Amino acid sequence: MKGIIMIIDGMADRPLKELDNKTPLEAAKTPNMDKMAKIGINGIMDPIKPGIRAGSDTSHISILGYDPYQVYTGRGPFEAAGVGIEVLPGDIAFRCNFSTASEEGLIIDRRAGRIREKTKQLASSLNSIQLEGFEDVEIIFKESTGHRSVLVLRGSGLSDQVSDADPKKEGKAPKEILGLDGSTEAEKTARVLNKFVSESYNILKDHPLNLERIEAGKPPGNIVLPRGAGAVPDVQPFNEKYGLKSACIAETGLIMGIGKLAGMDIIEVEGATGGADTDLDSISQSIIENASKYNFLLINIDGADEAGHDGNLQEKVNFLEKVDAVIGEVMKIPDTCFILTADHSTPISVMDHTGDPVPLVINGPEIRVDDVEKFDERSATKGGLCRIRGSDIMNILMDIMNKSEKFGA
Amino acid sequence: MKGIIMIIDGMADRPLKELDNKTPLEAAKTPNMDKMAKIGINGIMDPIKPGIRAGSDTSHISILGYDPYQVYTGRGPFEAAGVGIEVLPGDIAFRCNFSTASEEGLIIDRRAGRIREKTKQLASSLNSIQLEGFEDVEIIFKESTGHRSVLVLRGSGLSDQVSDADPKKEGKAPKEILGLDGSTEAEKTARVLNKFVSESYNILKDHPLNLERIEAGKPPGNIVLPRGAGAVPDVQPFNEKYGLKSACIAETGLIMGIGKLAGMDIIEVEGATGGADTDLDSISQSIIENASKYNFLLINIDGADEAGHDGNLQEKVNFLEKVDAVIGEVMKIPDTCFILTADHSTPISVMDHTGDPVPLVINGPEIRVDDVEKFDERSATKGGLCRIRGSDIMNILMDIMNKSEKFGA
Repeated sequence: MKGIIMIIDGMADRPLKELDNKTPLEAAKTPNMDKMAKIGINGIMDPIKPGIRAGSDTSHISILGYDPYQVYTGRGPFEAAGVGIEVLPGDIAFRCNFSTASEEGLIIDRRAGRIREKTKQLASSLNSIQLEGFEDVEIIFKESTGHRSVLVLRGSGLSDQVSDADPKKEGKAPKEILGLDGSTEAEKTARVLNKFVSESYNILKDHPLNLERIEAGKPPGNIVLPRGAGAVPDVQPFNEKYGLKSACIAETGLIMGIGKLAGMDIIEVEGATGGADTDLDSISQSIIENASKYNFLLINIDGADEAGHDGNLQEKVNFLEKVDAVIGEVMKIPDTCFILTADHSTPISVMDHTGDPVPLVINGPEIRVDDVEKFDERSATKGGLCRIRGSDIMNILMDIMNKSEKFGA
Repeated sequence: MKGIIMIIDGMADRPLKELDNKTPLEAAKTPNMDKMAKIGINGIMDPIKPGIRAGSDTSHISILGYDPYQVYTGRGPFEAAGVGIEVLPGDIAFRCNFSTASEEGLIIDRRAGRIREKTKQLASSLNSIQLEGFEDVEIIFKESTGHRSVLVLRGSGLSDQVSDADPKKEGKAPKEILGLDGSTEAEKTARVLNKFVSESYNILKDHPLNLERIEAGKPPGNIVLPRGAGAVPDVQPFNEKYGLKSACIAETGLIMGIGKLAGMDIIEVEGATGGADTDLDSISQSIIENASKYNFLLINIDGADEAGHDGNLQEKVNFLEKVDAVIGEVMKIPDTCFILTADHSTPISVMDHTGDPVPLVINGPEIRVDDVEKFDERSATKGGLCRIRGSDIMNILMDIMNKSEKFGA
């Protein structure tokens, strides 16, 4: 038997006056999700625990059966793994922005005019550089999407207890990076990073691509600002932990990075944008193709979360109605325990994640089908699962798949 | 006020096509259980946590308020206590089989033809023997039911980190027992055990009872194969932990052993077989008699679990209908908080324990009676308790009995 966990990122919400006090999911026409509710067992799920506002990362970590309080050291390692850097336990990883610095050293555009093109060339010029006085520290640097990039420091005597360089506001100088816990490791890491930031300006300021951008009246990506330090955790491979052959189908580097660090195969889907404009047919096709190659799939579809962050109600409702077709396709896969849920609520009214629980439904053989008829935040509260946690999901899935071991006699 | 926890072993199940997608408990006519549901507060319970497949042992440990991850070292100590050996913390205990070895040293019957008679005599010949070179290790050996027996090693420098002797298949030699963690304690214990296995053959092969069996064409019980090593845990006595005078009424050595290790009085019930043919009247009578002598009873009735392991649907339904009468009797005991539940699901379709939650109902004074009208897996999900864990039960019981202490001011 196969196991599929499908996470509609940020799907859950709060009641809205504009929708007659319905949530977007309650208002949306989602016949396939409702069919899942009818033939399945339903409940609500707290990704971490009740009221905790989970990130997409910490929620996915928890749903995969890892303790986010142990594994989640910061966003850097997951982003780094997500862009394809082969990170190793102990590496210190950072998310970075290409930004624009003035000649006076002030940050005049934190995202370098949302630079999109040829950041690979900029990144190459920083990858593998040696910093004077820190020849024992290996620098790995890679572009991500848009103005984003990733930095990994490899070497002994380093720490993730360092502050961020990003001043958060334009018109200010990059913040001096500081060690946060007084350790010699953190002090050394801060000196390495400050050196890296100043070197990035030296190397990038006259880079041909930036000269071209200045010529075209665009802000150059002439400095790199690291943040979100995290030491790469030592994670027991998912396949070993559960005895499954697994793959991750996701749209964002962050979720791919979680799959990657858990040792899953990462399936890239053509046309997946992570937004409401993503190619859902292409995602469906990829799921169907890979369902026969693996016995576990983690699927993340991101558009509803983006609409939530943007506070775009109509886009969220429309996207939920569109993504419903993907669920219809997944329901056709035979011999499967299929779990549909969200990783957190991203209410339109809050435009960020909240700690409200999310609906969850399980379809599979021999389950105790309940009398819930719709898949949404409030119908799910009447279901046979009552209220569970993200950390319960893999245990429940393994039990239904008959792959659990008995604890005791 | 008295507290009674009654556990119908393996009672819960999954929906079955043969029963129109009802579970055996949903299909069975159980008017007393349903009355409990009507006048009580209901919910579902995960013995350990959602999705975890509990053994009867780990589940009962959890329900009594002990952490099975700390207390449960293996099945040996509970079996040993259950057959009446006065085990001490630190003793290393094993479940054993009387088996049949050929002259060439191969195991030709792992259960010695399911030997039943006079194993007490075989066991006596091994109890208290001294093993050459290991005079510091006390050997305690006792027969259990059928071909089963129990070995306890007492002495310093011993460990439960050793492998099993049972080759699991017939036609093979006993497995050499090995230390599992490289410690000198485990190495020593392995040597003691290997010596014990070979000595058991030397002592038993010409035992008069075995010569009789050979004469009668039956396989002799001429070798003992230990498995399931566990160090006897140091358990805070139940009566001290809760300030209760408690007794355990159970049918199997395993559950009696748990009660015994928790320091409870063990009530033996005449006619209790642990099967569907058990004498339920005798069990009822024993409960009624002892309810006046104790202020806490743990009751385990095993027949439904046996039917589940056998995949015998009709027997499971019949047994649930029969055991309902016992519940009717227990309901008559005055001034009692009476909790009825199961220790795990043993679905007919799986023929082993699963991690599905079990129904639970509480009758007692001043409880918040809910609107559930039937006692079964799915009706219970609508109850006022929602979803609790095994480890919550004693706390809830102590609260209802008004014996809890306030935490804080």
